[in-house]
Amino acid sequence: MSKISTDMVGEANSGRDKALQADYAALGEHLDRRGIDIEKITEKVAAYGVAVPSWGVGTGGTRFARFPGPGEPRDIFDKLQDCGVIHQLTGATPTVSLHIPWDKEDPKALKAKGDEVGLGFDAMNSNTFSDAPGQAHSYKFGSLSHTDAATRQQAIDHNIECIEIGKALGSKALTVWVGDGSNFPGQASFTAQFERYLASMKDVVKALPSDWRIFTEHKMYEPAFYSTVVQDWGTNYMIARELGEQAFCLVDLGHHAPNVNIEMIVARLIQFGKLGGFHFNDSKYGDDDLDTGSIDPYRLFLVFNELVDAEQRGVKGFDPAHMLDQSHNVTDPIESLMQSAMEVQRAYAQALLVDRKALAHHQQTNDALMASQTLKSAFRTDVEPILAMARRNKGAAIDPIGVYRRSGYRNAVAAIRPASAGGSGGIV
Amino acid sequence: MSKISTDMVGEANSGRDKALQADYAALGEHLDRRGIDIEKITEKVAAYGVAVPSWGVGTGGTRFARFPGPGEPRDIFDKLQDCGVIHQLTGATPTVSLHIPWDKEDPKALKAKGDEVGLGFDAMNSNTFSDAPGQAHSYKFGSLSHTDAATRQQAIDHNIECIEIGKALGSKALTVWVGDGSNFPGQASFTAQFERYLASMKDVVKALPSDWRIFTEHKMYEPAFYSTVVQDWGTNYMIARELGEQAFCLVDLGHHAPNVNIEMIVARLIQFGKLGGFHFNDSKYGDDDLDTGSIDPYRLFLVFNELVDAEQRGVKGFDPAHMLDQSHNVTDPIESLMQSAMEVQRAYAQALLVDRKALAHHQQTNDALMASQTLKSAFRTDVEPILAMARRNKGAAIDPIGVYRRSGYRNAVAAIRPASAGGSGGIV
Amino acid sequence: MSKISTDMVGEANSGRDKALQADYAALGEHLDRRGIDIEKITEKVAAYGVAVPSWGVGTGGTRFARFPGPGEPRDIFDKLQDCGVIHQLTGATPTVSLHIPWDKEDPKALKAKGDEVGLGFDAMNSNTFSDAPGQAHSYKFGSLSHTDAATRQQAIDHNIECIEIGKALGSKALTVWVGDGSNFPGQASFTAQFERYLASMKDVVKALPSDWRIFTEHKMYEPAFYSTVVQDWGTNYMIARELGEQAFCLVDLGHHAPNVNIEMIVARLIQFGKLGGFHFNDSKYGDDDLDTGSIDPYRLFLVFNELVDAEQRGVKGFDPAHMLDQSHNVTDPIESLMQSAMEVQRAYAQALLVDRKALAHHQQTNDALMASQTLKSAFRTDVEPILAMARRNKGAAIDPIGVYRRSGYRNAVAAIRPASAGGSGGIV
Amino acid sequence: MSKISTDMVGEANSGRDKALQADYAALGEHLDRRGIDIEKITEKVAAYGVAVPSWGVGTGGTRFARFPGPGEPRDIFDKLQDCGVIHQLTGATPTVSLHIPWDKEDPKALKAKGDEVGLGFDAMNSNTFSDAPGQAHSYKFGSLSHTDAATRQQAIDHNIECIEIGKALGSKALTVWVGDGSNFPGQASFTAQFERYLASMKDVVKALPSDWRIFTEHKMYEPAFYSTVVQDWGTNYMIARELGEQAFCLVDLGHHAPNVNIEMIVARLIQFGKLGGFHFNDSKYGDDDLDTGSIDPYRLFLVFNELVDAEQRGVKGFDPAHMLDQSHNVTDPIESLMQSAMEVQRAYAQALLVDRKALAHHQQTNDALMASQTLKSAFRTDVEPILAMARRNKGAAIDPIGVYRRSGYRNAVAAIRPASAGGSGGIV
Repeated sequence: MSKISTDMVGEANSGRDKALQADYAALGEHLDRRGIDIEKITEKVAAYGVAVPSWGVGTGGTRFARFPGPGEPRDIFDKLQDCGVIHQLTGATPTVSLHIPWDKEDPKALKAKGDEVGLGFDAMNSNTFSDAPGQAHSYKFGSLSHTDAATRQQAIDHNIECIEIGKALGSKALTVWVGDGSNFPGQASFTAQFERYLASMKDVVKALPSDWRIFTEHKMYEPAFYSTVVQDWGTNYMIARELGEQAFCLVDLGHHAPNVNIEMIVARLIQFGKLGGFHFNDSKYGDDDLDTGSIDPYRLFLVFNELVDAEQRGVKGFDPAHMLDQSHNVTDPIESLMQSAMEVQRAYAQALLVDRKALAHHQQTNDALMASQTLKSAFRTDVEPILAMARRNKGAAIDPIGVYRRSGYRNAVAAIRPASAGGSGGIV
Repeated sequence: MSKISTDMVGEANSGRDKALQADYAALGEHLDRRGIDIEKITEKVAAYGVAVPSWGVGTGGTRFARFPGPGEPRDIFDKLQDCGVIHQLTGATPTVSLHIPWDKEDPKALKAKGDEVGLGFDAMNSNTFSDAPGQAHSYKFGSLSHTDAATRQQAIDHNIECIEIGKALGSKALTVWVGDGSNFPGQASFTAQFERYLASMKDVVKALPSDWRIFTEHKMYEPAFYSTVVQDWGTNYMIARELGEQAFCLVDLGHHAPNVNIEMIVARLIQFGKLGGFHFNDSKYGDDDLDTGSIDPYRLFLVFNELVDAEQRGVKGFDPAHMLDQSHNVTDPIESLMQSAMEVQRAYAQALLVDRKALAHHQQTNDALMASQTLKSAFRTDVEPILAMARRNKGAAIDPIGVYRRSGYRNAVAAIRPASAGGSGGIV
Repeated sequence: MSKISTDMVGEANSGRDKALQADYAALGEHLDRRGIDIEKITEKVAAYGVAVPSWGVGTGGTRFARFPGPGEPRDIFDKLQDCGVIHQLTGATPTVSLHIPWDKEDPKALKAKGDEVGLGFDAMNSNTFSDAPGQAHSYKFGSLSHTDAATRQQAIDHNIECIEIGKALGSKALTVWVGDGSNFPGQASFTAQFERYLASMKDVVKALPSDWRIFTEHKMYEPAFYSTVVQDWGTNYMIARELGEQAFCLVDLGHHAPNVNIEMIVARLIQFGKLGGFHFNDSKYGDDDLDTGSIDPYRLFLVFNELVDAEQRGVKGFDPAHMLDQSHNVTDPIESLMQSAMEVQRAYAQALLVDRKALAHHQQTNDALMASQTLKSAFRTDVEPILAMARRNKGAAIDPIGVYRRSGYRNAVAAIRPASAGGSGGIV
Repeated sequence: MSKISTDMVGEANSGRDKALQADYAALGEHLDRRGIDIEKITEKVAAYGVAVPSWGVGTGGTRFARFPGPGEPRDIFDKLQDCGVIHQLTGATPTVSLHIPWDKEDPKALKAKGDEVGLGFDAMNSNTFSDAPGQAHSYKFGSLSHTDAATRQQAIDHNIECIEIGKALGSKALTVWVGDGSNFPGQASFTAQFERYLASMKDVVKALPSDWRIFTEHKMYEPAFYSTVVQDWGTNYMIARELGEQAFCLVDLGHHAPNVNIEMIVARLIQFGKLGGFHFNDSKYGDDDLDTGSIDPYRLFLVFNELVDAEQRGVKGFDPAHMLDQSHNVTDPIESLMQSAMEVQRAYAQALLVDRKALAHHQQTNDALMASQTLKSAFRTDVEPILAMARRNKGAAIDPIGVYRRSGYRNAVAAIRPASAGGSGGIV
């Protein structure tokens, strides 16, 4: 089983081309009346890419159960194959982000598979939130911040190993997320635990190549349910500052307290030179890891509004990494990742339409209504023709989900890959 | 000072007509490819109306301060005048909802003024959450649920008075929102307080004409900060059930706990025949009373998706009242109300575009991704040309905000109406 | 390995008896000055019991990982053994609540083991939120509310099977919690899904013996992340009403939206005759399932304040079931369940100390401060001597955790029970 | 009208002395068994003081209404008189925190009144969240961060004026809280607004005497409902760092997002040397400003647990300011402030009882259950006899509320001070 046939993509595109041309022309004329050159937007969208997480192509689950689908990837090579399909059809996901030890394989073989499916390697991800089989020290009570020095050293070594693997693959960044924290008041000393975390991370940073960046990720709660070491952007910022010039903060859209203004946090991190990048997804309650843009698309747009604003202001050193991080429990993961990559592009395209000169004027004159409408009018513009044209122009599919379904890819891999066991861990 | 000149509206429309026709034609062609007749949507949007709250045309405030603008309405007649402008320019707000005692005036004079500015009268609103000057019993510790019988009777009588006034005006509904509750655990008996509330409301219902409805409104908190008698839709439903066939639940979008799925509550109330209507607004934190659609436009769409679904299913007795309820602290209230009325129409138009046959199929087959995209594709369609055309066709303004600003209405009334004092109540 | 030796308990109690007698006498004198007879409180506490969940004696986990401890129970017989220790040392947990299919075994063997360890059987729990091996139809997209009739029937049959097993064990109630819902707007029709749920539940109720009760449990979210069929007490109440006289609502303290006033919900359900019982635990963020009373002990007290109030008012038919439902990720489950059972007793004892006559007077006169302090002064009374004396008097341990640790029980069972595998499902 | 008669206090204390001695002795013996010297705790509690806010002695309100009580203070001299009563009866509130311009009077007269009633002056509070009559520039769209330079300068000058007044009174700190932010996405540039804020604050800091501190206070929302300039502790920390060595962060317990772990924020600020102090109060929903300890007393204890821990660790430069900040809508403000001051003392006393050596051991060995119980056992100790004895020993009242009520103070001042108008601002 290989990629989707190029002929099939071309044929499907042909059937949709006339309607796309009509929609694109109409939108072009409309945008022209607003003083916007549609071609420039299309070019920018075409040049945009978001990384997919290797673990995202497997069906996710909750603590209650996991319900796998047909054709679950057996290993990282299957995962790379699936990721290749995503990029082939959307043209929007040129890189994959690996997770160690889940994806630990011979780097040469990984690189060869990446080349085969047309994918590069984005940030490496370490895992010290679960115990690997045979691991000497358990992370039950923490990893980089554990009270036991040997456990901390094991976690440090694991992160350094991730860097080593990444170097062989051409990655240029390490993402560190830990679940360390506590479940009860008193269980841990907030201060001592954070001091240990910082000391461990400094050891990791020592192993970082000079052209790499290290991203730390904050999260309010889960798996720890009373306190988490890196609980919010305030602590995350302190970490990035303590760790030095190569350290930056990663923002996962689902990792904040209810009602928090995330786009404002993004702006603050940009202002203080510490925005490292994103884990895109969507959520209604907690770290729901739903498909990007599926719950609150305006919030996603407002985040991109800050990014485009920083880009256009030419903020020094501004270069955030973009990655999807989702858990697909009820959809085909390939479909969800394709759709999500397109939703990220959509928000980017909409943000590019914002009349920033008018916005600045309304802000300066405190014209709240017109300022609000300036954003809303960009957001409500249907940029689908732009996204579709960008895909079409680079040989991807005008309708990726449709082509994917018609291709029979899922059934084909299901015939090769054995059925995966689901079930429950007995945890309620 | 009278309404905006019709000539000015016509002239402004002329200047925008060509672009509108182009956008409308393009959208029509696009929708035609999706099997939708744009004209039918435009007709439905044109027939849609939302009531404006009389109190909404004055600048609002917080407990910290109130910052009035120029030309604040002095009384209900000024308010009706302002409301008339909103309807003239948007064609979307044919009725006004009055608040007693704030708007208490001779009904004949009110009706005459309504006729003059082209407005009818929607639901009446009672006020037992603040003390009117000279009031015999204070509502400091509650009104309809107060421990003191005389205070309860006063609140009952006030509600009956609202009905009487409404009868003279042609209103057909009474909306009852109370702030009754408690600030501390123990302050009130949850049960006894609710029993008193129910008993009082039953007395109010006795005075309700047979062709009226009574709407009760739930709210999680504020002004009571520990418990509120009608705290959520569960309690609200029980009230409506206890009060009988004329009683229904009113949903204010900002009155729920964080993260709550409001559209699902709407569906439940429809299912059990007790959805009375809406107070539309938007919010990020609590009862922020921001402009409708300004914070989470997709949530507004999802509410309308339920309404259109019920309408098209022909749910028996389904006839919710639609009203704006906002507090305008930093904008010209007339502008915010015009924009909000249009946002409500936008959500309605988008919901009308949902391919319900396809949606039902995806739901039946548990195709979560396509179901989600069926809603998203309706939502992301830019229906602005439909709204504008609906306005244009009925002689309202293609660009209501633009015309309003050019008309000089605010300056004209500011020249007549004295400056309003702002300041703070010294409450922090 | 059997229970803890009675001698060890007695010996440990002897060493603590003098201090306990002193503390108890001092508290008795103090309470006497407040007009309270300590003996009557002690008797009530001694008579109080809370059920433990069979699944609670195994180490829990999150979707990220599970870190088992030594001596994890291998099956329901091991679980009953562990539960027996909990009751032996605390004297507070006379019954166990089983979970099917996890605990499915020959009822006679179960009953014999229960008799052996001194435990009865509380409510039965069905499981349709995960797929059992070999199950014909998957619950990936729902169970009792699934769009597919055969899947619904399978879920109905499973619930009926739970009733059958329970009948053989002497249980008198079935608890039904389902994770049915949706992850994306549009995935499910709120209304049709709820109709299917109600129809299925009616079939289950038909199989309910006349002396049984059925408890339905609401939960805001998880495992479904956009909507849940039984999302709050409002829907839960409707279910109980639709299902008839044997149906009641179960309240899990961690299943509500942020900031919700849970004790008020308890009061409402009591008032309308539909409070079925509790799943006690504590939480800071979501359904954290932490040890009862560990995060917000005053909230637990306020819930018991409602229960004692209802008890003393003699509310007709008031008979809620009390059960712990926790997930123990970082503690020895036996210790956590012992401590939690005592925390529930503590809240009950404190609530018994409330001066209800004074409280009623303060409520009637709107003396918010004194009403609040009436509750606070009951809450802040250190009732530990009462709890300890109640345990001592019935032969349980004055210090259950201390005796348990000294007994070496955990090491002893670890020597018999093989190590359990932890690890991660690869779900982030 | 003067203070409460000393005789009355003494007489009331006499009547309660025997019971207090008995309770105190019993607690002393109990604590002795736990290795704690009760006298040392009592001494520390006696030495503890919390500042009262001058505005707190007037009845507060919400945006819906304000319901004043009898005897509302007419001016700052009345307020100081009321504050004097609070300190006389509790012995726990030796200083008052003033609010300018509300309390703007001749400093000599203020100081004389302070001396008369036995009160010193704590941190000064500026007000740029409401417009004072005759003010040249409005704060409707912001103050220190306003887009208009003249408005910013006015706000800067006002803060400097507060410093000047404070210098004359012997204050040593300025607290700055601003409501600046925005109500709609787009209304303000997050970055430019924050840059303006920082620049203004730097000008204020220039005017700060070398022995003063400046406290900035963060708040998630209200009065701004989309974004707030100083929205959380992350931004607050950045401010304190930018402003230099005299700048610190103030924590108001009610100013955070739902579910946030506040005690952890306190620990972080201590760790990085930027904890300035507290505005104590309690809340269930938002900035409810309820009486301290009335909603979640365990949370208050956990905050004090961090403070005592830092104190005992001898953290360099650790010297947080303690102040109450509440709004009293349904209670007599004097009573609420007395009770709240005692609740703060209670949390302090409980935190002093924590066995820190045992706690450190449990933390080091990851004994989550015993660590949790170490805190819980300190918290559940009823320290009321310690607080009462500390009051008694310094001539304050054993039962401050009781003495206050019997004194007839409220009626006496009501006879002198005219009734205050309540009512509503017409803002819904």
